[in-house]
Amino acid sequence: MQNNYRMLVAYDGTRFYGWAAQPDQEMTIQGKLESVLSKMTDEEVEVIGAGRTDAGVHARGMVANVRLDTAMTEVQIRDYLNHYLPDDICVLEIKKCGERFHARYNARGKTYRYTIYAGPLKPLFQRKYVYECFDVPDVERMREAAQYLLGTHDYAGFSHNPRMKKSTVRTVDSIEIEKKGDYIHFTYHGDGFLQYMVRILTGTLIEVGQGKREPEEMKELLEKKDRSLAGFTAPAKGLTLLKVDYM
Amino acid sequence: MQNNYRMLVAYDGTRFYGWAAQPDQEMTIQGKLESVLSKMTDEEVEVIGAGRTDAGVHARGMVANVRLDTAMTEVQIRDYLNHYLPDDICVLEIKKCGERFHARYNARGKTYRYTIYAGPLKPLFQRKYVYECFDVPDVERMREAAQYLLGTHDYAGFSHNPRMKKSTVRTVDSIEIEKKGDYIHFTYHGDGFLQYMVRILTGTLIEVGQGKREPEEMKELLEKKDRSLAGFTAPAKGLTLLKVDYM
Repeated sequence: MQNNYRMLVAYDGTRFYGWAAQPDQEMTIQGKLESVLSKMTDEEVEVIGAGRTDAGVHARGMVANVRLDTAMTEVQIRDYLNHYLPDDICVLEIKKCGERFHARYNARGKTYRYTIYAGPLKPLFQRKYVYECFDVPDVERMREAAQYLLGTHDYAGFSHNPRMKKSTVRTVDSIEIEKKGDYIHFTYHGDGFLQYMVRILTGTLIEVGQGKREPEEMKELLEKKDRSLAGFTAPAKGLTLLKVDYM
Repeated sequence: MQNNYRMLVAYDGTRFYGWAAQPDQEMTIQGKLESVLSKMTDEEVEVIGAGRTDAGVHARGMVANVRLDTAMTEVQIRDYLNHYLPDDICVLEIKKCGERFHARYNARGKTYRYTIYAGPLKPLFQRKYVYECFDVPDVERMREAAQYLLGTHDYAGFSHNPRMKKSTVRTVDSIEIEKKGDYIHFTYHGDGFLQYMVRILTGTLIEVGQGKREPEEMKELLEKKDRSLAGFTAPAKGLTLLKVDYM
């Protein structure tokens, strides 16, 4: 009998072509999970993630669900997965959940963190998880700009693919920017994010912080919905999916 | 005119064949430093380290000295080095020092830390800096054994090369063992350590913690001076040189 399982997954995205399984591309997180679980149950399985993360993006709290027919306990499944998965993917928890739980459809919010190194040296032991910003941005200016980006807006101008047919309206309810030592953390919470949206928001905020743009320009960027007017796409390696919210 | 400079260096040892320069082996920390500094000054330079770290061992506070003939300021030299060194080596500081300062001869003590992961999951983001220990060792037993290992002893039985001609007598004045979450840190301080000594001490303590040896056996291991009687050599990746002391 099949049961629906909910799992919490962390990964170092450095070596991967993103979360989503792709034909002819072995190095995806979803692909690795499906491959190990298919071997475990001797059946084809489909792992449904809360969302996709792009190539090079990390996660500390991706949520997924999967239907499995197995007599193994939850801890046995977790240990089996962690044993056979590569050492840059870890299943933190797997638990039986309601039959109707769907990791993508039921997701209500997400928290992403973008980290930059803004010190005089190098982010030696963090180098795979942060973006090095030599021209150190001003935190106060970035905070001011971030206020304009909050709320419910059409974020097409901050997306990789602005001509997509689905709605590009999202609600971002908080952007916190904190300096801790030589690092600056940008923490975003919203009901969902378009492709590259967190990275383009971060790149644009960095440009404000570096004095290349004014905080008030953010209003115009939201109104004009033109990707080419916004800032650069901050590199994937600085981005981590921290948490997915459910009701 | 040449000046003597003292520098503080951190590195992620994963990709390197250790600190010491070797002919026909480009991937050493000393070799990388000498190569960049030679280019900078257009002269052959010799970087003298406080000691050697083995292949795969990390450092957060290696000390070295080097004689340079340059008009550059200390900060300019530091920035030049960090720009041209690979991203897994960082010069934290470089300063002019007394002509007679010698990083190896003047070193009075060293602090090393060995870290193991002893949790139910995986040390995902720390995996290159810790050793995963599935059979979790008991901290109290290891602390008891560590007491026997303190003091001034001939540590030949805990060395890779016990037949070396130089003295194998060293003083270890503290071994602290602390559990923090799923990690166990072993912090060693002494006047110096033989090759592989910290890793063999750690391997032996882990075996005590796992109940494979008794704490009292440590006395015998020191007396017999036979490497084959001590525990396994814990893997290089868990070891980090934290600090070198000078008068």
